[in-house]
Amino acid sequence: MDTKLYATIEGGGTKFICAVMDAERRILTEARFPCQNPSETIANCLNFFLTTQSQLGSLSALGIASFGPLDPRPDSPNFGKILATPKPGWANTDLVTPFAQALAIPVAFDTDVNSAVLAESLWGAGKGLKNLVYYTIGTGIGGGAIVENKLIHGLMHPEMGHILLPHDYTHDPFPGICPFHRDCFEGLASGPAIEARWGQKGSDLPTSHPAWQLEAHYIALALVNTACTLAPERIILGGGVMAQEQLLPMVRAEFLKILNGYLQIPAILADVDTYIVPSGLAGIAGLYGALALAMQAA
Amino acid sequence: MDTKLYATIEGGGTKFICAVMDAERRILTEARFPCQNPSETIANCLNFFLTTQSQLGSLSALGIASFGPLDPRPDSPNFGKILATPKPGWANTDLVTPFAQALAIPVAFDTDVNSAVLAESLWGAGKGLKNLVYYTIGTGIGGGAIVENKLIHGLMHPEMGHILLPHDYTHDPFPGICPFHRDCFEGLASGPAIEARWGQKGSDLPTSHPAWQLEAHYIALALVNTACTLAPERIILGGGVMAQEQLLPMVRAEFLKILNGYLQIPAILADVDTYIVPSGLAGIAGLYGALALAMQAA
Repeated sequence: MDTKLYATIEGGGTKFICAVMDAERRILTEARFPCQNPSETIANCLNFFLTTQSQLGSLSALGIASFGPLDPRPDSPNFGKILATPKPGWANTDLVTPFAQALAIPVAFDTDVNSAVLAESLWGAGKGLKNLVYYTIGTGIGGGAIVENKLIHGLMHPEMGHILLPHDYTHDPFPGICPFHRDCFEGLASGPAIEARWGQKGSDLPTSHPAWQLEAHYIALALVNTACTLAPERIILGGGVMAQEQLLPMVRAEFLKILNGYLQIPAILADVDTYIVPSGLAGIAGLYGALALAMQAA
Repeated sequence: MDTKLYATIEGGGTKFICAVMDAERRILTEARFPCQNPSETIANCLNFFLTTQSQLGSLSALGIASFGPLDPRPDSPNFGKILATPKPGWANTDLVTPFAQALAIPVAFDTDVNSAVLAESLWGAGKGLKNLVYYTIGTGIGGGAIVENKLIHGLMHPEMGHILLPHDYTHDPFPGICPFHRDCFEGLASGPAIEARWGQKGSDLPTSHPAWQLEAHYIALALVNTACTLAPERIILGGGVMAQEQLLPMVRAEFLKILNGYLQIPAILADVDTYIVPSGLAGIAGLYGALALAMQAA
């Protein structure tokens, strides 16, 4: 039985959540710090773990699930760094070395969405599957993926929120809000895009508002591209926008409509309700993902 | 030293190429058969290998790199079968069992493009890389991919030719020719799409024709989506359309223009000439891919 203690960080753009967990995913202690300048945030997290360690005993490894872009490749000279983020002060921040040096334990590091898909494959909606995609659709849009039980790294990590989709201006004249690509997936379908298009927050729009059919359309386009590229066994959707419960059935219907009979796999065409599913770890996939990283590193 | 003999089949929509090779990729004997009805084509290939075996000695394994869709998952009940192809008579054809039974050797089976990317990673333009994408752009469009040294299978295999792309009808009123999706990547940018749009074959269009800038645009859109989804270390382009030598530099330029500074990785933004490259095994990637499959199976 695994009785180790695991340190975990879910690093988000507004707050960092630190926790110490056991292998049963019990949270033994937890703290939240605002995401300010990097040195302050890192010091807060570090103090928390040092204090915890003196109280609970030694920590066996740390998993960090962070906002990106970042370098998750352990053999890279930039491993552990946040890359070119627009978040002031954070570009080139090394999130791994301060913890590795002060705590003297293995530190694993990956994106929030790669970590989430790992957690979903271990304990959530993708349990037991070796090929899995997780999308978060909220303030931003991001995707993580597992292929044959391995997280996709490659040159960096997926940036699935920035894929380019058909955009019919006669039907949807909204130009999109991505500062890089204007009308990529995130530029058309993130929470802020919904708000910019309709003049009010998605959470304030009625469930019958045409915003949701359009939103389902863009999500479905992205999922068709994902299915055609990665052939995942399941696609998991999370994030604040997906909390709109009317949305998921619309996404599934639109996905089948766009596929139009292609990918003639019963798991897709006949069982779309088990092919495109909600997160099984809603709200806690990120922290569990950090735990999964820590357990792999230990 | 590997002195084994490997049987290989490159199964295409118009012809099947059979060869026996050694581990040094020398072709010891080869034959080509038209792709007619399945039983005839399979019998022709089988006779060739049986004859060869009686002349050269026993074959250690067979690798089949075939047109799809197909089931490449060895643990699936449909392993070895061609799936729902529009090619008359070929749907549900079992391409593996007849050879496995008659030759009594291990038989490996995958798509032509998955096989090609495997060959490129071993001997071609992606040598030594663990995360690689190969696109063929010709009569059809297809893609294969390796993630952490493993071919993508998942539910089936990638169908990258059918991803959906931005299509500006005011600039390009051509509706596309894909019978499933009309204006997916293949519907807009395959060789037959070029011919249908411009009224003559691509090979008859001058290199300065606007067809090529438009073609480069669609290919670049697809590669941006691929890069954002798979983060490959390199993307390899093959197929008849890419034989137009003016096209590749246009694709690279358009790719950078669309990315617009995103994916801030020097290997992409600064070294696009080594990021998007032509096949290193032009014309023979498929057969070498079948060899790679056979060597893995042996």
